[in-house]
Amino acid sequence: MSKYWSDVVKRLEPYTPGEQPRDRKYIKLNTNENPYPPSPRAIEAIKRAADESMRLYPDPDCSRLKSVIAEHFGLKREQVFVGNGSDEVLAFSFAAFFNPGNPILFPDITYTFYPVYCMLYNIDYKTVPLDDDFNISAGKFLQDNGGIIFANPNAPTGKFMDLPFVEEIVQYNAERVVVIDEAYVDFGGRSAVKLIDKYPNILVIRTLSKSHSLAGLRVGFALGHADLIAGLERVKNSFNSYTLDRAALMGAEEAIRDTEYYEKTRDKIIRTREWVGPELEKLGFKVTDSLANFVFASHKSMRAEYLFKSLREEGILVRYFNRPRIDNYLRITIGTDPEMEQLIKVLEDIVG
Amino acid sequence: MSKYWSDVVKRLEPYTPGEQPRDRKYIKLNTNENPYPPSPRAIEAIKRAADESMRLYPDPDCSRLKSVIAEHFGLKREQVFVGNGSDEVLAFSFAAFFNPGNPILFPDITYTFYPVYCMLYNIDYKTVPLDDDFNISAGKFLQDNGGIIFANPNAPTGKFMDLPFVEEIVQYNAERVVVIDEAYVDFGGRSAVKLIDKYPNILVIRTLSKSHSLAGLRVGFALGHADLIAGLERVKNSFNSYTLDRAALMGAEEAIRDTEYYEKTRDKIIRTREWVGPELEKLGFKVTDSLANFVFASHKSMRAEYLFKSLREEGILVRYFNRPRIDNYLRITIGTDPEMEQLIKVLEDIVG
Repeated sequence: MSKYWSDVVKRLEPYTPGEQPRDRKYIKLNTNENPYPPSPRAIEAIKRAADESMRLYPDPDCSRLKSVIAEHFGLKREQVFVGNGSDEVLAFSFAAFFNPGNPILFPDITYTFYPVYCMLYNIDYKTVPLDDDFNISAGKFLQDNGGIIFANPNAPTGKFMDLPFVEEIVQYNAERVVVIDEAYVDFGGRSAVKLIDKYPNILVIRTLSKSHSLAGLRVGFALGHADLIAGLERVKNSFNSYTLDRAALMGAEEAIRDTEYYEKTRDKIIRTREWVGPELEKLGFKVTDSLANFVFASHKSMRAEYLFKSLREEGILVRYFNRPRIDNYLRITIGTDPEMEQLIKVLEDIVG
Repeated sequence: MSKYWSDVVKRLEPYTPGEQPRDRKYIKLNTNENPYPPSPRAIEAIKRAADESMRLYPDPDCSRLKSVIAEHFGLKREQVFVGNGSDEVLAFSFAAFFNPGNPILFPDITYTFYPVYCMLYNIDYKTVPLDDDFNISAGKFLQDNGGIIFANPNAPTGKFMDLPFVEEIVQYNAERVVVIDEAYVDFGGRSAVKLIDKYPNILVIRTLSKSHSLAGLRVGFALGHADLIAGLERVKNSFNSYTLDRAALMGAEEAIRDTEYYEKTRDKIIRTREWVGPELEKLGFKVTDSLANFVFASHKSMRAEYLFKSLREEGILVRYFNRPRIDNYLRITIGTDPEMEQLIKVLEDIVG
């Protein structure tokens, strides 16, 4: 603690991302990265961006990328906001739509960055408990609040809430903004994007980090009514005029255009997830019904923390959260088939 | 104005960056970009970053880039913070070191993003008037305050305040953080970096956008006592775990390492600035004594706004600020010699 820190800094408890160790080569199943490389077209586009024009500022409005995204989703350009990873888009959303003093709602088990944003912007919150199977009950969001955010599929559970329930929440809370964090929706969930033209209070946030294999490029975006997008633009333009560099802009455009590549790699991940779940169950794990690029699993007799450490020793990184209700679970990213075969093999040794 | 906007968004008046028009090809002297391309080594590094590893998150701590910067400045790695452009580093600094209710100080004529950050974080401020020649008087900063920020050289004037005056300000305000925005210091000013090991309350902010020809890559950094850097890290890690993408990290490292290239292009810009000033004076301009990569000039008989518009029609973009005290000045970025010769030629026609 330094006397020079602001009151904000003193109260912060920053988010801790999954480790990126360099001590040895791991099978890395701990940060929900895509095991397949990005679209070759996206890679080429990034290389093309590396030229003399790097001396010039990027387009502060990111117009072309917004157009590509708008076209992809059948929306207008003014319904699209882009940012430096979906984390930045989320941060701007907290600043743009939530106020101090009026508690917002989010599930008790979800992306742990949400309470951190609340601390950063001094926003109060109330958590809504998931049921024992980690389902989000829509009914619990039908109460007075200053705004709502949830991830769908949820993290780290992977559980998806069906769209009629999402719509019920959006409809009931017509005077508040409902933010739906769809970082993982591409792996089998149904997107709430189709509700955007019907409700002015829904904001859908996406990322290229998972489904488009571009965690290293930092591109996220938000889709919603033009008024909500304008609010985000006001925050962004009061923070940093140019949040996306030229490489990120060009790489993202091409990644979104290359739908064929994205669908192929996504389908592979879904197919792998479908066999990994049953294999884990055979080994004595309870596995949540995940529609994300990870599974969430708890073993009937061995502690998650022990399994986490044992896997690490064997060169396999998974994510363990030492938090109430989920401290006996592992979140395991879906890697390639050979990586997951290796995981199962190592687990057989540990639990066998 | 939307009913969904937070109170913060409603009160914001976002910053407006210089225009990036696409209607025709301009000689672009309006956003202080470097007229020379980035180091070829930096370009190659960005290309190398465009590979399969883009599927992985970048290093959230930016350790290697920090080490390169630390080594360059003879500092320790924990005295270095890096961000997505110096605008982001500035934004984090306002959040990290300034509090609501205790007005901070900055010059009345300076980078207009400072009051915008104040609005974003609800920080009060008092402006300190420059004298008639746009000098910053150090004595005016020797008063009660909640923190201080100034650009040195200042923008849009280009005027540099000598280090003994900077030190006087830092010394007097030992209980407050003094932020020195050195975006333009590489073009002839003396950096306050040498004061860092002496004073725990000084934070120096830099960018690769101007002197390293990398406006399109979005990399800025801050140098200061490890406690100040830790404060910035806490804000950053409560906002976005990964603010620099893999391309930016690798390009920035190589740009800083290539000091030979940087010195060569910087010297060219200084030499151009040295002849442009007198030429403008011959045409009836009063030109401030700039140590930046731009000059700030006012014509004895023709209005700056008229000159701005006339130059635009002739395919030359400069920056005009319709603001008190400087609404009869033009800020003209130093381009290549041929670009500046063309500027002088066109101005001769307009004012002749």
